[in-house]
Amino acid sequence: MSTAHPSTPTADALVLREDRDGVATLTLNRPQARNALSVGLMAALQDQLDALHDDPSVRVIVLAGAGPAFCAGHDLKEMRASPTREAYEALFVQCSRLMLAINRVRQPVIAKVHGIATAAGCQLVATCDLAYCADTARFATPGVNIGLFCSTPMVALSRAVGRKAAMEMLLLGDLIDAAEAVRIGLVNGAVPAGELDGTVQAVAAKIASKSSLTVATGKEAFYRQIDLDVEQAYAYAAKVMTENMMARDAAEGIDAFIEKRAPVWCGQ
Amino acid sequence: MSTAHPSTPTADALVLREDRDGVATLTLNRPQARNALSVGLMAALQDQLDALHDDPSVRVIVLAGAGPAFCAGHDLKEMRASPTREAYEALFVQCSRLMLAINRVRQPVIAKVHGIATAAGCQLVATCDLAYCADTARFATPGVNIGLFCSTPMVALSRAVGRKAAMEMLLLGDLIDAAEAVRIGLVNGAVPAGELDGTVQAVAAKIASKSSLTVATGKEAFYRQIDLDVEQAYAYAAKVMTENMMARDAAEGIDAFIEKRAPVWCGQ
Amino acid sequence: MSTAHPSTPTADALVLREDRDGVATLTLNRPQARNALSVGLMAALQDQLDALHDDPSVRVIVLAGAGPAFCAGHDLKEMRASPTREAYEALFVQCSRLMLAINRVRQPVIAKVHGIATAAGCQLVATCDLAYCADTARFATPGVNIGLFCSTPMVALSRAVGRKAAMEMLLLGDLIDAAEAVRIGLVNGAVPAGELDGTVQAVAAKIASKSSLTVATGKEAFYRQIDLDVEQAYAYAAKVMTENMMARDAAEGIDAFIEKRAPVWCGQ
Repeated sequence: MSTAHPSTPTADALVLREDRDGVATLTLNRPQARNALSVGLMAALQDQLDALHDDPSVRVIVLAGAGPAFCAGHDLKEMRASPTREAYEALFVQCSRLMLAINRVRQPVIAKVHGIATAAGCQLVATCDLAYCADTARFATPGVNIGLFCSTPMVALSRAVGRKAAMEMLLLGDLIDAAEAVRIGLVNGAVPAGELDGTVQAVAAKIASKSSLTVATGKEAFYRQIDLDVEQAYAYAAKVMTENMMARDAAEGIDAFIEKRAPVWCGQ
Repeated sequence: MSTAHPSTPTADALVLREDRDGVATLTLNRPQARNALSVGLMAALQDQLDALHDDPSVRVIVLAGAGPAFCAGHDLKEMRASPTREAYEALFVQCSRLMLAINRVRQPVIAKVHGIATAAGCQLVATCDLAYCADTARFATPGVNIGLFCSTPMVALSRAVGRKAAMEMLLLGDLIDAAEAVRIGLVNGAVPAGELDGTVQAVAAKIASKSSLTVATGKEAFYRQIDLDVEQAYAYAAKVMTENMMARDAAEGIDAFIEKRAPVWCGQ
Repeated sequence: MSTAHPSTPTADALVLREDRDGVATLTLNRPQARNALSVGLMAALQDQLDALHDDPSVRVIVLAGAGPAFCAGHDLKEMRASPTREAYEALFVQCSRLMLAINRVRQPVIAKVHGIATAAGCQLVATCDLAYCADTARFATPGVNIGLFCSTPMVALSRAVGRKAAMEMLLLGDLIDAAEAVRIGLVNGAVPAGELDGTVQAVAAKIASKSSLTVATGKEAFYRQIDLDVEQAYAYAAKVMTENMMARDAAEGIDAFIEKRAPVWCGQ
């Protein structure tokens, strides 16, 4: 599907990948189209996530955007160029699979939102495990303004924020600012634009310093338990935690804690 | 059940309806009883919603209250006058059906809360798609104070706000103010009392300017997907969005957007 | 399992119980271990809850901690001393059963958090029906730092707060302060340390003044309805409310309200 090989990004690839200290930064790279999620860009991002899932050298993923925007959603011109039910269905299935892949990839995914994030771009932010934005960033689910309700973005949005806040974004289609995005829980925090790279880098480095086995175990369990009723969730989580305790990194981590020394992780 | 015909409201009807520019305002009209939800008033409101569901001239519904209160909940005197299990059960089934009708009616429903909203009145606020209040409004689920826990209001409240906030309202029964209602997500915003009409009118007008087909599609999908697990939700939402794309209003909206002109909606 | 009899606490019991005016305060009493949840302490707390469930003299439960900490989570040294799958599984099953017991015990449970609450200690806070803290309290799910993801605490945490906030606590393992705990909805409120006892006492006294039958009915219904879809939730809640109306305390409470007099509760 994609031609970009993870370890050989080219300047004109639809998604750039740069690895540093266990953190892989994936950059949506259609700046001239405000990183609109064309079929090609989504395929490239899916390929990157699939490759990262099995890459033990990467412990955290950062999702960023090239140019002034984070991501403006689907590519409307491309959509209207193939106006068939089959093409539309394939597109939304592809997009939904991509969003689920962000939740399922082994490594935590952090959205670094420096500019506007709208429609499926806002969905990316709602979907990522963590999200930090510049205080100049803006967010919207504006599909209602063009006759196409943001129904798939709504799946992620309505699970990230309260119902009244989600409905207001979906029905009005207005941009909300960074402070409002923090208030409703769409992002974890907003910082001055000049501090965004440093903030995300510090969060990523902190997570990268943990046992990657432990982090992967916890991330998978988070999304599995959240759709269960509480009794099922506890039965499941108790098993996960038992397995986690049987792994070497937990023994090492706890012993190191008790002995007041730094742990040495091995787990993958 | 109700004698009020939607298009011929009378001054003494239990629910008044006034249409303007595609916005139907339904006003609870038992001001002397603080708009308590008697069997008659609930039937009248249900009839209005049923009629509006099939009325293409109306694109947004506003729910308001006559007199000093928004709504004080059930009519306790009426309830105690028919103290049988059958009467009580019929009442709560009727009320639950009414709340579900607010979520299911085609048009978005905006609560305009100018005064106190308590018990099933607070449930109305929690149930509406959007809610705006005067900064002098107050909210409570005070049933616990009179021996009757607000169990049906709890269904809506606990889905609108976080668990700790819901439990505090339910167990203490205290009034909370408008700022707290905004903070916990029970309402979208609070404005000075003198600006409430204008605020709600602007929100309603904005929604009324959109494709009513698109809005109805999105509203229905919102409540259907939110009780599904995420994988099912995406499978469903992808179908909804495909159908939405096949409709004329999406083609028109997207083409207008690309061509930088105003769209002309036809959808119903 | 436990040797402490509820009505005869001793100074060295793992959980102390003190009753006053219908409020039972359970105090985790391993101050030298920051009230770590050893197998013995969890068993003692479970026994106390089981006994309280059938004790009509108690209308509210307060959960507190002795010494500087509220609760530091599991007892890591004890865990590592029995490093078998069977022992770990038994521990997490016991802990999950304890958390469910807090939601299922008849009386509302209020967490009084004067110091740090971490890992399963933070889970206790997330699990209690209400929680108030000193403005010097701190909260964390730091298992990720020692190779053991807080997977069972996550069940409670992710149901109490939004996903982004929960993920940030779980993946970073950092302490958050009292103001942040209020902001994300983990606790109901934070007050100066010197006012915490008085604040919790006032909340407990207010709840204790209500019909205990009504409160128990409502608490049980809250946790039963919240995992149902909305239609099932309303069908269930309408039945609960009908039964509640048929009980003597509702008739008394409503009649007293109508007659503007204080109600006299009898219910159990």
